[in-house]
Amino acid sequence: MKLCLLIHCPDRSGIIRSVTTFIHQQKGNIVYLDQHVDKQAGVFFMRLESEFEDTVDLADFKESFGREVALDRDMEWAVHTDGHIPCMAIFVSKYNHCLFDLLSRYRAGELKVHIPFVLGNHKELEGVAEQFGIPFFHVPVQGRDRQDVDRDLFALLRPHKVDFIVLARYMQIISPALIDDYPNKIINIHHSFLPAFVGARPYHAAFERGVKIIGATSHYVTDQLDAGPIIAQDVTPVSHAHSIADFIAKGRDLERFVLSRAVQLHVARKTMVYNNRTVIFT
Amino acid sequence: MKLCLLIHCPDRSGIIRSVTTFIHQQKGNIVYLDQHVDKQAGVFFMRLESEFEDTVDLADFKESFGREVALDRDMEWAVHTDGHIPCMAIFVSKYNHCLFDLLSRYRAGELKVHIPFVLGNHKELEGVAEQFGIPFFHVPVQGRDRQDVDRDLFALLRPHKVDFIVLARYMQIISPALIDDYPNKIINIHHSFLPAFVGARPYHAAFERGVKIIGATSHYVTDQLDAGPIIAQDVTPVSHAHSIADFIAKGRDLERFVLSRAVQLHVARKTMVYNNRTVIFT
Amino acid sequence: MKLCLLIHCPDRSGIIRSVTTFIHQQKGNIVYLDQHVDKQAGVFFMRLESEFEDTVDLADFKESFGREVALDRDMEWAVHTDGHIPCMAIFVSKYNHCLFDLLSRYRAGELKVHIPFVLGNHKELEGVAEQFGIPFFHVPVQGRDRQDVDRDLFALLRPHKVDFIVLARYMQIISPALIDDYPNKIINIHHSFLPAFVGARPYHAAFERGVKIIGATSHYVTDQLDAGPIIAQDVTPVSHAHSIADFIAKGRDLERFVLSRAVQLHVARKTMVYNNRTVIFT
Amino acid sequence: MKLCLLIHCPDRSGIIRSVTTFIHQQKGNIVYLDQHVDKQAGVFFMRLESEFEDTVDLADFKESFGREVALDRDMEWAVHTDGHIPCMAIFVSKYNHCLFDLLSRYRAGELKVHIPFVLGNHKELEGVAEQFGIPFFHVPVQGRDRQDVDRDLFALLRPHKVDFIVLARYMQIISPALIDDYPNKIINIHHSFLPAFVGARPYHAAFERGVKIIGATSHYVTDQLDAGPIIAQDVTPVSHAHSIADFIAKGRDLERFVLSRAVQLHVARKTMVYNNRTVIFT
Repeated sequence: MKLCLLIHCPDRSGIIRSVTTFIHQQKGNIVYLDQHVDKQAGVFFMRLESEFEDTVDLADFKESFGREVALDRDMEWAVHTDGHIPCMAIFVSKYNHCLFDLLSRYRAGELKVHIPFVLGNHKELEGVAEQFGIPFFHVPVQGRDRQDVDRDLFALLRPHKVDFIVLARYMQIISPALIDDYPNKIINIHHSFLPAFVGARPYHAAFERGVKIIGATSHYVTDQLDAGPIIAQDVTPVSHAHSIADFIAKGRDLERFVLSRAVQLHVARKTMVYNNRTVIFT
Repeated sequence: MKLCLLIHCPDRSGIIRSVTTFIHQQKGNIVYLDQHVDKQAGVFFMRLESEFEDTVDLADFKESFGREVALDRDMEWAVHTDGHIPCMAIFVSKYNHCLFDLLSRYRAGELKVHIPFVLGNHKELEGVAEQFGIPFFHVPVQGRDRQDVDRDLFALLRPHKVDFIVLARYMQIISPALIDDYPNKIINIHHSFLPAFVGARPYHAAFERGVKIIGATSHYVTDQLDAGPIIAQDVTPVSHAHSIADFIAKGRDLERFVLSRAVQLHVARKTMVYNNRTVIFT
Repeated sequence: MKLCLLIHCPDRSGIIRSVTTFIHQQKGNIVYLDQHVDKQAGVFFMRLESEFEDTVDLADFKESFGREVALDRDMEWAVHTDGHIPCMAIFVSKYNHCLFDLLSRYRAGELKVHIPFVLGNHKELEGVAEQFGIPFFHVPVQGRDRQDVDRDLFALLRPHKVDFIVLARYMQIISPALIDDYPNKIINIHHSFLPAFVGARPYHAAFERGVKIIGATSHYVTDQLDAGPIIAQDVTPVSHAHSIADFIAKGRDLERFVLSRAVQLHVARKTMVYNNRTVIFT
Repeated sequence: MKLCLLIHCPDRSGIIRSVTTFIHQQKGNIVYLDQHVDKQAGVFFMRLESEFEDTVDLADFKESFGREVALDRDMEWAVHTDGHIPCMAIFVSKYNHCLFDLLSRYRAGELKVHIPFVLGNHKELEGVAEQFGIPFFHVPVQGRDRQDVDRDLFALLRPHKVDFIVLARYMQIISPALIDDYPNKIINIHHSFLPAFVGARPYHAAFERGVKIIGATSHYVTDQLDAGPIIAQDVTPVSHAHSIADFIAKGRDLERFVLSRAVQLHVARKTMVYNNRTVIFT
């Protein structure tokens, strides 16, 4: 059995020793440990994987860890077993490239998740979901009250016990209610190298500015538009010879790749968020 | 003898044929031709290199080209011979990495320019210039009238017949008078991936935003701060594990590389500017 | 109507002028011209796109071009109309990531081709082809005579009038007979940065050597294993922390991207081959 | 006071706990810990930095660590204080770009080393060393016995207590005697993406093969030519439009950058070697 422990707390002496000693006492063998200290903020972060020959009583483990290690240190922490496969909903609009990519990886076994449904504010991508055998739900947004939309969303998310949401070019504002329910659990792909070109039509803006490199950014959604903690970014060179249509075509490859990388990192529990920035463990 | 012809004009049929026929009539052999059409703006760009067995009378060539090809087509154009070595002034402040890089390349024969002097608003880099045997002039800026500073600058630029200016982390605002005298002939290096993080302390801002990639941008100076036509950009990945000091250290390598690439492109006459964007020929 | 002209011939004076004058006489407007001179080999290459207001009689055009321009210059050339959609067969084995990627792009309208069938030497990917509504044919290779296999292949390729073949991790040696029939028309993806790690198990070899960057290479198939003209390459950084399984996972993204880029370049007729190297127009 | 501890040993349970407990007992505060397990080889690697309020008696520390932690675990380890500035000799031949780069970084304070001398098998770069105020020694190689050359080299290296050697395009075979004296302490830059294009004239070979990306590789020198443990690699795209001279020019930038990165990693004690591969800590 394998446990993954994620920790952050005020940086003080002796944390690594305390945690590793605890794991040792529980008869665990540490197979991965990475830590980071944000010196400016004075915060310590750690990700630790350990193997146990016998099954661990998770409730016992949590109770002991909380009492013996975490309490005194004002620690925020979570522990995950390798048995749990997270449940991931995908929200889309009309662009299909990120959806094709995510579902292909899912079918190919590259993404260790359950996908209970794809949800679209339009019906255009119903066929793509069906092709991969995934239920598709249509929840229109235009012209409706946000509360009505949210009711529809929650009516799908809750019964399916969705753990996190991927916005695969969903292009809609997410309500504070939904963000509150899924803190650092909604992953968006923005088609620019943030913070350049926030908002709508970033490829047009990039073309207008005459940049020589374009990018894509995947981030957790917060209540600030395109300003949430960045998980992954990538770029590709462009030149004067490229039209806006070329930017968009090149951007599709970036978006696919960056979004799937962010999802992989999230699923592997290699992301932590603090002060609107991420710690990404390797 | 070799000529390099740079052209832009309204896009119409037959331009390439007219120009190549003219070169042929002048007994030139075209060894390079690259063209670009900005379809949105309806503008045609061309860079053409041709070899001539005999010496060409440049005044004759220009007069004929103007009359026979350029006039009817509302063409803006320039012709350069391979004999002319441009004269490049370097402006610096206190950071030495770009200056070391430019002067090393100059001494190694990688940069086909004359460097008549290095000019600093501080004296810190006098020793670097001296080490490479280049005169150094100190023109303080702080607490002085812009007009007085400009008078000092022009008093150096004019007698040395400076063709273009490289701001190697000069960190000072350039006056409209100087920009007017050197249109698209002042090359700056900005230590961010523009248009992200315009202005002061971009590495601090990038760190604060939690980006996963940092960049550097070289551009021609216009009267809009950090908003001139971009010549070259490059980026490098960063992570949560990097401090602001690490960003700055990594950025130095980007700045060195991007600035020297922009200078190389400018010297090779591979840049054209239109609508605040560049066409960069290869 | 739009024509795309691809030319290569011994480098001599006046070629560009002759060609552009011919296009002008045919009442065409040149919208793109890129040329390259391989100085070592003394060979001139050109790609030219031109628009014609009226329909062009292609037979007439070819006859005239051959007689007036090409003949004297020992020119090899081809002309393509924008109406022709090429027919592309995909050969696979057991790995599905490149097939998913190609078919997703095809369905999304990113690839301007017809795909008459997917052919596998195993049956594993039949379901993927079916999911996208593409016929799948099983042509076993193991334990069979090459001639028998080839007979099966030609029996599929010929009636479907296949223009070119994509080996999407087909992993089988292609017979000289097939290569002869499809010269520079069989595109392979090799999962290393060629010429490093030719042959089988390149990710294992890369891991063993301790490289810090891995790559993928797409090339035209010739009778030399993994030694044909390279169309596209890309790389990604790796570290000691990555296992062979990680190399393979990262490599999948490279392979997808590099293969689709090569296919796009081939379909857009932006590739020319000479002396086992490619000229790739932009 | 700050200590940096580097460890590798057979992978067993409890190593991290033992080491961190020892540091705690010595009243050290761990500010950085990174570990890696090579599962194939069954080897554990760790790099640990710790701060101590008081001065540590290094001899005591080593004796205790050896006895209490390292002995039982068959550990190879080294401990470094932040006070020691390593002594780095530079060997050159005729190419100046890497030498300019290293000395510029040294003068700019980017490289925390002493440079007692530059040694050339030719005299061409004497002026560069002098310009930076570094002694230059000429040790000819051609036509001489290897033993005589080595005697000259050791006569310089030993009295200066040189810790490690950088071959800045030295282009000469290093004798086994010198390699034995400086195991994993001689850093070379090879001008290709190893293992592609081992040996002489790699840019010519890369051009001939028609690659679309060229690279540079920095590695520790072993008795196998260009086959030592790789410290750093980087690449840059090329195209058919680039000549061999262009490859060489682009390669200079790669070589500069990759060599200096490898030197920085070595100086920061972030490299460990095992089975002819490196672990590079971040």
